[in-house]
Amino acid sequence: MYLKEIRSFFVGGNPVTLRRQPVLRQRLAQGATERHINMNGDIMTGQMYVQAFIQRNPCSDIPVLLWHGGGMTGVNWETTPDGRPGWLQGLLNDGWNVYVCDAVERGRAGWSPYPEVWSQPPLFRTKNEAWQMFRIGPTDGYHTDPLRRRAFPGSRFPVADFDYFACQWVPRWSGHETITTAAYEALLDITGPAIVIGHSQGGGFALRLAMQRPEDVQAVVALEPSGAPDDLLIPRLCPPHLVLWGDHFSEHAIWRDYRGTVAKHCSQLRLAGARVDERDLPELDIHGNSHFLMLDNNSDMLLAGITAWLRSRLSLPDRGTDG
Amino acid sequence: MYLKEIRSFFVGGNPVTLRRQPVLRQRLAQGATERHINMNGDIMTGQMYVQAFIQRNPCSDIPVLLWHGGGMTGVNWETTPDGRPGWLQGLLNDGWNVYVCDAVERGRAGWSPYPEVWSQPPLFRTKNEAWQMFRIGPTDGYHTDPLRRRAFPGSRFPVADFDYFACQWVPRWSGHETITTAAYEALLDITGPAIVIGHSQGGGFALRLAMQRPEDVQAVVALEPSGAPDDLLIPRLCPPHLVLWGDHFSEHAIWRDYRGTVAKHCSQLRLAGARVDERDLPELDIHGNSHFLMLDNNSDMLLAGITAWLRSRLSLPDRGTDG
Repeated sequence: MYLKEIRSFFVGGNPVTLRRQPVLRQRLAQGATERHINMNGDIMTGQMYVQAFIQRNPCSDIPVLLWHGGGMTGVNWETTPDGRPGWLQGLLNDGWNVYVCDAVERGRAGWSPYPEVWSQPPLFRTKNEAWQMFRIGPTDGYHTDPLRRRAFPGSRFPVADFDYFACQWVPRWSGHETITTAAYEALLDITGPAIVIGHSQGGGFALRLAMQRPEDVQAVVALEPSGAPDDLLIPRLCPPHLVLWGDHFSEHAIWRDYRGTVAKHCSQLRLAGARVDERDLPELDIHGNSHFLMLDNNSDMLLAGITAWLRSRLSLPDRGTDG
Repeated sequence: MYLKEIRSFFVGGNPVTLRRQPVLRQRLAQGATERHINMNGDIMTGQMYVQAFIQRNPCSDIPVLLWHGGGMTGVNWETTPDGRPGWLQGLLNDGWNVYVCDAVERGRAGWSPYPEVWSQPPLFRTKNEAWQMFRIGPTDGYHTDPLRRRAFPGSRFPVADFDYFACQWVPRWSGHETITTAAYEALLDITGPAIVIGHSQGGGFALRLAMQRPEDVQAVVALEPSGAPDDLLIPRLCPPHLVLWGDHFSEHAIWRDYRGTVAKHCSQLRLAGARVDERDLPELDIHGNSHFLMLDNNSDMLLAGITAWLRSRLSLPDRGTDG
């Protein structure tokens, strides 16, 4: 990949002032004495982090924005847990300009004190929950001892590296849809017309922003979106949508519920004249995908299908990789 | 920059089990109903995040590791707050393989629940404190209203973008030196012989790891290290050290204290026969630098001096940039 620039920036957020915080004394540097730490004063809250990879010779003027899911960061798009190149590297080798987000309150976006700024405490995701919510194995299939875990037979997730995968999960908050949506809007203000690839909660935000900003969202790829906007009117001109679903929905009640919300949204999009391509991978005889399509062992093949779809829907020319 | 690979990985950390956590009901996806959230179970704690940029034709086999300071992340090395290319881009244009860390508990490394895993609550840095601790202006120079702030005359920090700079600060904990040192050791296990450029708290860790792992740390560049190890024997063969100091130490008691610890360490290194080059920038007639040398308006010049020093100390050939 021949890059012109790797840059980063923050969007969204606003200043707040902390008051009535204790003044502490702690030692913060090796060999130093304790010092006063006064946490009363001004901080930022609600910002989002963006890391941009700009090609010397991009394959398109339209960049790809990668929006991760709940309790995750942009790391989701990097190296897979079993050490294969992730979709970030695949898209860069393919010639796209790529913007990777760490959404509000996650990863490099930082987070704000609670209950002083955010009323609620954060949520931590256990491996126990992830094993079943990510549809790697059955609801009762997790065990602390990796040798005693039960994955779905033929799971495409790199099951042997599940514990390592847990290194990249970060705490999250519920109820932050408004500030997160504002940050994604601020990102679109900067990028202009863009392709959005969103996973899980990020897929739901992608569906939302396609409604709110149809002039900027040129195409949406929603990977197992966990939800869809239920409070928006479908605009007159809707960008094309590709929605991808992995395997093992019949075993999971919450995911059937989530998927139902998205199915309803897709129907409304189609009624409004939008092009919505929904791909149920098992129906296409592709079995064993987990919730993390971009980390499964067929991730390269799935990405190739997505970029082919993008080139077709946006009438872009094919282009060989420069690997 | 012609890169072969951008990859990321985690080092350090260990599994822990959360018990006696409440089981909540919350709505986590757009359009969905509430679901149970059970936070009892297994999580990871203490891991560190590393993003690696690998050149197609590196200028050296020895990579550069960038270790940020307290309450910061690897973002410190990216675009400066006023939008100039940061040292990450400068080093990549210069041909180095670069590993950027988000230290334990910060940024993409995630963080652990307190008091369940970490006994203490985190520390949040206010702009009020940062203005004086980063030596941008006098101790009483901060004001919420940017127009009423007083910076040091001739400050090289991008003062107009100070509020935006605050977007990249993240919460931190005190007392995590042991787990953080373990993670840096695990990183050196992976990279092998490397150059470490560390800033502030990260500079102190660089000084420590140079003592603990002199066979892996080929050279240390400590940018205003906030401390130095006071509990280690100097090894027989010590790597060369470059220590850089900005301006306005006379105005700041805590920084004079921190600097005294480092000065003592440097003396001991020299007594043990190590090559230690200490550069006080004002003594070299370079005035106005803040604590954030890599963000100040002469950052390109300072980086050029550092890479020249590295090439000289490590007997590496010069190389033009491929910009």
